[in-house]
Amino acid sequence: MRAVIQKSVGGPEVLEVAEIERPELLSGEVLVRVHASSVNPVDVAVRAGAIPLLGEPPFGVGWDISGVVEAVAPGARYAVGEEVYGMPFFPRAATGYAEYVATPSRQVARKPKSLSHVEAAALPLAALTAWQGLVDRAGITAGDRVLIHRAAGGVGHLAVQIAKARGAHVIALASAAKHDFVRELGADEVIDYRTTDYAEVLRDLDVVLDSNADGERSLRVLKPGGVLVSIMEHFNPERAAQVEAAGRRFAGVSVEPDYAALEAIAELVDAGKIRPHVSRTLPLEEAATAHELVGSGQTVGKVVLAVN
Amino acid sequence: MRAVIQKSVGGPEVLEVAEIERPELLSGEVLVRVHASSVNPVDVAVRAGAIPLLGEPPFGVGWDISGVVEAVAPGARYAVGEEVYGMPFFPRAATGYAEYVATPSRQVARKPKSLSHVEAAALPLAALTAWQGLVDRAGITAGDRVLIHRAAGGVGHLAVQIAKARGAHVIALASAAKHDFVRELGADEVIDYRTTDYAEVLRDLDVVLDSNADGERSLRVLKPGGVLVSIMEHFNPERAAQVEAAGRRFAGVSVEPDYAALEAIAELVDAGKIRPHVSRTLPLEEAATAHELVGSGQTVGKVVLAVN
Repeated sequence: MRAVIQKSVGGPEVLEVAEIERPELLSGEVLVRVHASSVNPVDVAVRAGAIPLLGEPPFGVGWDISGVVEAVAPGARYAVGEEVYGMPFFPRAATGYAEYVATPSRQVARKPKSLSHVEAAALPLAALTAWQGLVDRAGITAGDRVLIHRAAGGVGHLAVQIAKARGAHVIALASAAKHDFVRELGADEVIDYRTTDYAEVLRDLDVVLDSNADGERSLRVLKPGGVLVSIMEHFNPERAAQVEAAGRRFAGVSVEPDYAALEAIAELVDAGKIRPHVSRTLPLEEAATAHELVGSGQTVGKVVLAVN
Repeated sequence: MRAVIQKSVGGPEVLEVAEIERPELLSGEVLVRVHASSVNPVDVAVRAGAIPLLGEPPFGVGWDISGVVEAVAPGARYAVGEEVYGMPFFPRAATGYAEYVATPSRQVARKPKSLSHVEAAALPLAALTAWQGLVDRAGITAGDRVLIHRAAGGVGHLAVQIAKARGAHVIALASAAKHDFVRELGADEVIDYRTTDYAEVLRDLDVVLDSNADGERSLRVLKPGGVLVSIMEHFNPERAAQVEAAGRRFAGVSVEPDYAALEAIAELVDAGKIRPHVSRTLPLEEAATAHELVGSGQTVGKVVLAVN
C-alpha cells in the first residue's frame, strides 16, 4: 500500500510516498481503507523534530482518518463496510497518511452520516482537542462566557461550534478577513486581535481556550475560578503554577483517542450543530504542500489529503 | 520498580519478579502507583505461548490495575492522587503486574468509590468483556432471556450482575457447589451443567454469553435473530458462519480498553448493582501460584495480586 513516511526530520521535503506492507491486525482491531486523512499542526511539529513523540525516524505521518472498514480481526466492534473516523494510536505511532490503517476498534467511531470522508477526516484530532478541553476538562455549560483563540483555525472553528452547541456565549479572536467566517460558525462577538488587545476589553470570563500559547494574557480575562484550557502550553509547568496561584484553574490538554467523544461529536454533526470547514483538499502525493499550508498558521479550518 | 516479567513462554515457573525502570510518560499519560492487579485467563494463555499477542519474550505480564495517580504528563486527564482503574494497552503490551504503570489517561477511569483497590482491580478486563459483549454487541434490554456460561467465573459472575442490572432474566450455568454463589449474584435460574444438558431444557433465548467455547450447543438454545456472544471462540470463522447460516447473530468479543464503559460500570458498582468477588489475594511474588489457580479453571470470581 502507499503511505507517507519520513526517513529524517526536517522541512516538508522529507515527506515521501513509500510502498509498504499493509498493517497486521491484532484481536479487536479493524483495518480501515482510508478515504481521507487530515493534516494537523502536530504533524508538522513532529515532522520537523520540534515535538519528538515518535523517537528517531523512519516513521509514518499523521493521525486523522476517515474510511471504510475493509477487514475485521476476530472480536472487533465494527463490520466490514462500515464507515468510521478517528485518530488511532495518537501519540504513540503515526500511521494516518496511508491507504490502510489498522486500529483498535474503540479508537474509531462511526462516521457522521451527513459528511463526506474528506469532511469527516477533518474532525478527529481537532474536534477531540476542543471537546476534551471545553467539555471534559472545563465542563462548559449554558451561559458560560468563553473566549476562543485562533477561532478560524483547525481547533478553533470546531471549538466555536462545540461551545455554541452547549449554549455558551462565544467570543472569538480572528483577523478581520476571517470575521465573517467566524460569525457564520456562531460566534457571538468577534475581536480582531491585530487591532484590539482583548485583555483590555474582556474580563470575568468563565473559560478561555488558548491554542495560541498566549496564557499570560488569557489569564487576565478569566474570573476567579475560571478555567484556562491550554493546548500549546499544556507542557508548561510555570504557566500552570501561575494560573493556579492566581486562583484560576489550569487545564492543559493533550488530545487522546476517544470513541465516546467521537460518537457525541458525530451526533452533533448529524444534528446540524457542527460542520468542519475544509479549505483545501490535496492528493497523498502532495503531503508536503499540505504541510507548508498548515505550517504557515494561516489556513482557515482544515487541510485534507484525499487518499482513495 | 518491581514488575513480573517472563523471559520465555511456559508454565507458571517462567514468571519472575524483576527490578526494572519506571515507565516513561508521553503527553496525555498518567503514571499509576499500582495497589492491586488481577489475573485473567488470557494472562495464563499468553504466558504459556497459547495466544501469541506479545511476540517473542521477554515481556511483561497482566493488564488489570487499580491504583493512585502518582504523576501526570502534561495534558493528562487526571490529577495526582486520584484513584483509577483500567486495563491499559490490552492487547498490545502487558505491564499490569508491576508497582507502576504508565497509561494513556483515557484507558483508565475513576475507581468505584465503594471498592478497595483489590476489589477494583478484579473488574476491568472481566467486566469490560461482559459489558462489551452483552451491552455493546448484543444490546440486551429489560426482559431479555440471557444464558451465562461459567457464571461463577471471572467474566461470568460480572456478566450475571450486568445482565440483571439491565433488567434481563438470567439463566446461569454452574456446578452445584457454586449455585448459592450464583443465586446471590441475582441469577433467576441456575442449571448444573454436570447433570443437565442445558440444550435439552432451554430454547428461544435472546442472548447467550459463551465463555466456554461451547458455541455449537449454545446456538441450539437461541431464538431466530438471537445473539451468540462468543469469547473463547471469537476467532473462529467456522462458528461465525454456522451461527449466521442458522439465522442467529454471531458477536465475537475481544475486549478493548474503554474508559466510557468503565465509568458506566463504576456507577453501577457504586449504586450497589455490581460487586466483584475476589476469592484469593496474593502478593506479587506469588504470581505463579495465582496463575496455577486461574489456569485450573475452577476459581470462583477473581484472583488478585496485592502490589503496594
